Parts: sequence; C-alpha cells; structure tokens
Amino acid sequence: MHSLEFTAESSADGMTERDFTVGEVPGVLWSPASGADGAPLVLMGHGGGNHKKHPAMSGRARRLVTGCGFHVAVIDAPGHGDRPRTAYDEQEIAVMQQAMAAGEPVGPVVVRYNAHLAERAVPEWRATLDALQELPEIGTGGSVGWFGLNMGTAIGVPLVAVEPRINAAVFGLHWPDALAEQAKRITVPIEFDLQWDDEHIPREAGLALFDAFASSEKTLHVNAGRHKELPRFEVDSAVRFLARHLSRTALCQA
Amino acid sequence: MHSLEFTAESSADGMTERDFTVGEVPGVLWSPASGADGAPLVLMGHGGGNHKKHPAMSGRARRLVTGCGFHVAVIDAPGHGDRPRTAYDEQEIAVMQQAMAAGEPVGPVVVRYNAHLAERAVPEWRATLDALQELPEIGTGGSVGWFGLNMGTAIGVPLVAVEPRINAAVFGLHWPDALAEQAKRITVPIEFDLQWDDEHIPREAGLALFDAFASSEKTLHVNAGRHKELPRFEVDSAVRFLARHLSRTALCQA
Repeated sequence: MHSLEFTAESSADGMTERDFTVGEVPGVLWSPASGADGAPLVLMGHGGGNHKKHPAMSGRARRLVTGCGFHVAVIDAPGHGDRPRTAYDEQEIAVMQQAMAAGEPVGPVVVRYNAHLAERAVPEWRATLDALQELPEIGTGGSVGWFGLNMGTAIGVPLVAVEPRINAAVFGLHWPDALAEQAKRITVPIEFDLQWDDEHIPREAGLALFDAFASSEKTLHVNAGRHKELPRFEVDSAVRFLARHLSRTALCQA
Repeated sequence: MHSLEFTAESSADGMTERDFTVGEVPGVLWSPASGADGAPLVLMGHGGGNHKKHPAMSGRARRLVTGCGFHVAVIDAPGHGDRPRTAYDEQEIAVMQQAMAAGEPVGPVVVRYNAHLAERAVPEWRATLDALQELPEIGTGGSVGWFGLNMGTAIGVPLVAVEPRINAAVFGLHWPDALAEQAKRITVPIEFDLQWDDEHIPREAGLALFDAFASSEKTLHVNAGRHKELPRFEVDSAVRFLARHLSRTALCQA
C-alpha cells in the first residue's frame, strides 16, 4: 500500500489546497483552513479531457469546503492531467476526435474508452481513499461521498458498486451500456442529472441508467438543454444532497 | 367583476391569515405580518379531496410567506372544502371510490373529472387574481407564481396556458391526457415532480406531460417511491424555484 505524500500546499479564502501523490497517481485535497477534523470527505471525478484542478472541480470543491466544512479530493484519471497517455489512450482519443470531426456518434467510443479508464481508475481511487483515511484530519470515522458526471460517472458507478465506504453519490450524463449492471449493485442514496435535449445521450439511455440503481432513495434531475448546458443550480442541488446524506449537521451555506 | 371581501383574520408567528370570498368562491390569503407591499404572489392549487387550508397548503404557505416574504393565496376548488357538490360531482366521486374499492385503475375517471373541475376553476382563479391585484399590498407590479400538484396541476396547466400574468409554475403528479395540448402553450419556467414508482400514473405518462411544456427552462424531479411518497425536500426545491424566478432578491430562508 502506498501512503499519501504531499507535494505542494497553498491557502486562499478559507480553503487549503494540497497537491499529493499516492504512488504514481497525482491528486489534490481541498480542506477548510481550520477545524475540519473528522469532517465528511467528498471524492470528485473529473470529466473526460479535463483534469483534477479544472475550474468545475475547484468551483465545486469551494462550495463543499467553505460552504459545508467538508474535505474534497480529486485525482487525475489515467491519461489525464499530469499523467502520461498510453498508446491505447492515444488511439482511442484519435478515434473519438475523428468521430466528432465527421459528425458521427461519439457514444460507442466514449462508452468503450471510459469503461477501460474505469478499470484502471477504480483500484487507484480505492488506494487513494485508503491513504486519505490514514490522515489524522480525515480518519475512518467520517462519511464519504462521490460526485462525478460524464466520465466521473463512468468511473464512479463501478467504484461505488464495490466500495462500501461511500455513503452517497451524485452521478449523471452517461450511457447505461457499461454501467447498468454495476448500478444494480448500488443501494446508497443517489442524485442523477440528465439533459433532456442531450445531443449525445438519448433520453431513454439516461433514464435506463437512472432506473438501474437499486437505491431506495434516488432522485433524477432532468433539465431542458443540450449535453453541456447543465444548469449551474444543479451544483447547488448536488451540494445540498451531499450535505443531507453525509453530515449530521448539514449547515451548508449552499 | 367581483371584488374581494375579507371574512376573517388571524395572525401567528409572523404570518397573517385572511379568509376571503370572491363572489361565491372562498379563499385564504397568507401574508407576512409586515412589510410585504408589492411582494410576489404565489397561487396554490390543492389536491383532490382536500381544501384550501389542508396542512400541505398551510405548510407550503408558511415557507413562502415567512421564508421568502411572499403572499400566498388558495381557493377551494369546485365541490371541495366549503363549497357544495353538484349531482355530477357526487356521481364522479362515487365512480372514483368504486374503482378504488375494486382495485381498478382510477386514472380514467380522475383525468375526466379533473378536466371538468378545471373548466369551472380556471375562470374562478382568473377572477380571484383580478381581485387580489386590486389589494394595495399586492397590486399589479409584482410577479405571480403557481404551485399545484395532482389536481393542482390539472387546474394549473390550463390556467397558466391562458393567464399571461403567471411567470413561473410548479406542477407534477398527473396524467398528460387532458393537459398535454395546453402544456404546449406554456413557455414560462416550470419545475415538474414525478414519482418513479407511481402506482396510478405510468412513468411514460408523467414523462410525456413534462415533455409537452414549451418552456425553454424546465426541470423534472423524479424520485423513487409511490404516488403519495413525494419527498419533503421537493417542497424546499419548489420554494427555491419560485424564489429564483419571482423575486429579484430571492433571499428565502428555505
């Protein structure tokens, strides 16, 4: 087992940002500047082509850290951010770009490539969670959540399916093909986002993935709009959902 | 045109409750105990078999009045609350009760009877809104919203379709049969609630009604559970939705 090594630290506006590695995997841990011992931890999965410190990640982290007092961790997915691409990564990315340039459906290659990335990422996430829980300010007593859309759902669904330490999850914006069977093993509360006019993911596909979760508490949020037009207020909603399920006090300023 | 006559008034915990009549239609107006001149007005439609002061109505009103500083008005639907039933009302209610007792689908009779009630209720609501806007503390300058599920959607959809003074609406838990054509004429922002395991309303029926709205801003909230198991947090969400669309300040304590 690799332990977590901090490689950089900075602080601004009540939030501390610490870069870390667990083995060869680079990550970032955002925490309240003070008084977060034993606070809930939210693991966030970034989208395809992005990385651990994309503004969508740091923005959501700020809401959870300064609004709720939670810890938030993100790692670079395989082939993303500071991590090298394999020959297979390069090949699949080329196929994806060709499909986009030709105006052909990207679903089949995204589904296939994301399933491949998830196989590599799930053990990395479990090792990262092991290492994070070794930190005295996190420990093993607090609740753990998952928040990841798009590729963050492709990795998050198989992770939550096998990881009993995760107590609630926000998913969305993905096809069911490689995920529905694993979703059937998930019973923790979930919130799921779907875009009604998604040009990539058919409505029936998104609804089928939501339907697959075995969770007795599950909520689907559908909004009018295309794939990238998820309204900003859905982040507020995700933060409230995580606060409701992870915190006994849930006093988020969200 | 009938003007509004107040028939009773009481006040508790920062909320004033005033019973009124507009012609033969009895209603209730809840307002902040002070300082609500020109504040937004939310019209709420109660569910079938209930009435204007059902706890679901007074509870939602309290959130909007004391949390947001809004006015809230509810009138008894035809044949409900303090209003007499016609012979036709009695007949349809008997058919509905027979279907329920026999374990047969209630959808067809509910759809038909609610459509009949809506024909009677829409002009009553328009006259009520006319009369409410004559009150100096409401006036014609503020925004107006609709919040009604079940029968409150059966009446609200045809009302909002013809009433340009309503700026945003919360609907849900109804069949599309008598409503989809009118929903196609609605363009204001809407939030729509649907229960994923509704024993009365098939999923496809609820999704079809959501799909019919012409609104460019529309959100669907689906929750696991049966018809009457809508989670309490959906009221919080509806309050936030109305605050976002009706108020320039939107400082609700919701």
